Amino acid sequence: MSFEVDLNGKKVLRLESVYSHTIPASMGWAGLVKAGQYIRVCDPRGRQCADLWAFSAEDMDEHLSAMHTRVWVNKLCPVPGESFHSNYRRPILQMITDTCGVHDLLTAPCDEHRYRLYGVAGPHRSCAGNLREVIEPYLKLTHFYVPQPFNIFGNVPVGADGSVQNGPAPSRKGDYIVLKAWIDVICAISACPQQFNSISGWFPTEVQVDVYEPAAEQPD
Amino acid sequence: MSFEVDLNGKKVLRLESVYSHTIPASMGWAGLVKAGQYIRVCDPRGRQCADLWAFSAEDMDEHLSAMHTRVWVNKLCPVPGESFHSNYRRPILQMITDTCGVHDLLTAPCDEHRYRLYGVAGPHRSCAGNLREVIEPYLKLTHFYVPQPFNIFGNVPVGADGSVQNGPAPSRKGDYIVLKAWIDVICAISACPQQFNSISGWFPTEVQVDVYEPAAEQPD
Repeated sequence: MSFEVDLNGKKVLRLESVYSHTIPASMGWAGLVKAGQYIRVCDPRGRQCADLWAFSAEDMDEHLSAMHTRVWVNKLCPVPGESFHSNYRRPILQMITDTCGVHDLLTAPCDEHRYRLYGVAGPHRSCAGNLREVIEPYLKLTHFYVPQPFNIFGNVPVGADGSVQNGPAPSRKGDYIVLKAWIDVICAISACPQQFNSISGWFPTEVQVDVYEPAAEQPD
Repeated sequence: MSFEVDLNGKKVLRLESVYSHTIPASMGWAGLVKAGQYIRVCDPRGRQCADLWAFSAEDMDEHLSAMHTRVWVNKLCPVPGESFHSNYRRPILQMITDTCGVHDLLTAPCDEHRYRLYGVAGPHRSCAGNLREVIEPYLKLTHFYVPQPFNIFGNVPVGADGSVQNGPAPSRKGDYIVLKAWIDVICAISACPQQFNSISGWFPTEVQVDVYEPAAEQPD
């Protein structure tokens, strides 16, 4: 299946699908995205956050790093054209298209500690837990830690006074982003299981993932 | 030597010194700060940043976490009274006193990759390198990573449009912060060796560290 992306209003790039997967509500996914391939993350129902991580396939100690990205792009979050950077200070994923415009690069993924503080007595799925689960087959490290994710459609407005709030994901049905990989990366995505605040609209739903390559034939 | 801290303009607490150390320019320091002890980080000359990390002495996988702190205090950085939180979502250090008011909890420590990008051909000291050096005697992990630091006196203003800039540390001679430990922590501090931007006023200088306990005799 082909898909066309608008490169910042300047050019159209035709992509061919090489992989497609629907992440069920509250679950995770991980897979290889090769250098030069594109990954599209879509919210099919609206108001759903997706936490994304990216690790170098060659050396998983290198990963998308929020604290290194902010000082590179001099923004709280990259916009189309700009790239997420790794903890080795090189570009790892480029933001290509963004139909929503609101994402978060400030906050932790939900984790088992968060749900314990909400008072949940039993187990509860979490973005950090989803990452640990799906990254396992790819893991070559003796000791894994959870880096800060890129919270796609995360609505975390920062006030002029430095206040950090959160509100419902503004994504509408079918909103998506497309990222290009600069190097071979293991991408992991969690369809955020947060149901105790409004960030995913109180009702976690599924997330659509597609991986593409540039088509051999491009539009005129 | 005793030292009095003003608890948010409400009460005065007298502290007795248990440890004092001057970190030479561009170097690092690490040490144990026990639960209930206070650590004071002072800029003796002005315009000098200090990167601080804190790890649970019991389990070094637990550490001060910027991404968990922001969502707890709902601010870009805690103010006196508020606490830094750990990746296990519990308080680790409380901000007690702050004579400067400007700090940064958004940006990466300087590291070897940063100096390579500046074009430095040979080795160059860095905050991340200082952390690795000074944490080594305390390390019980098989695999260590560098968490995001708390950049004391770091001047990283965030614009209403989400822009992230940096400017010279606003600290004047003798400005300090005091933090209280909620649990036994290994604190590490780097007197930032950054000399290729204005963040430490172009000339890295020393940082003064003092650890205190509450005095047996308190002021009336």
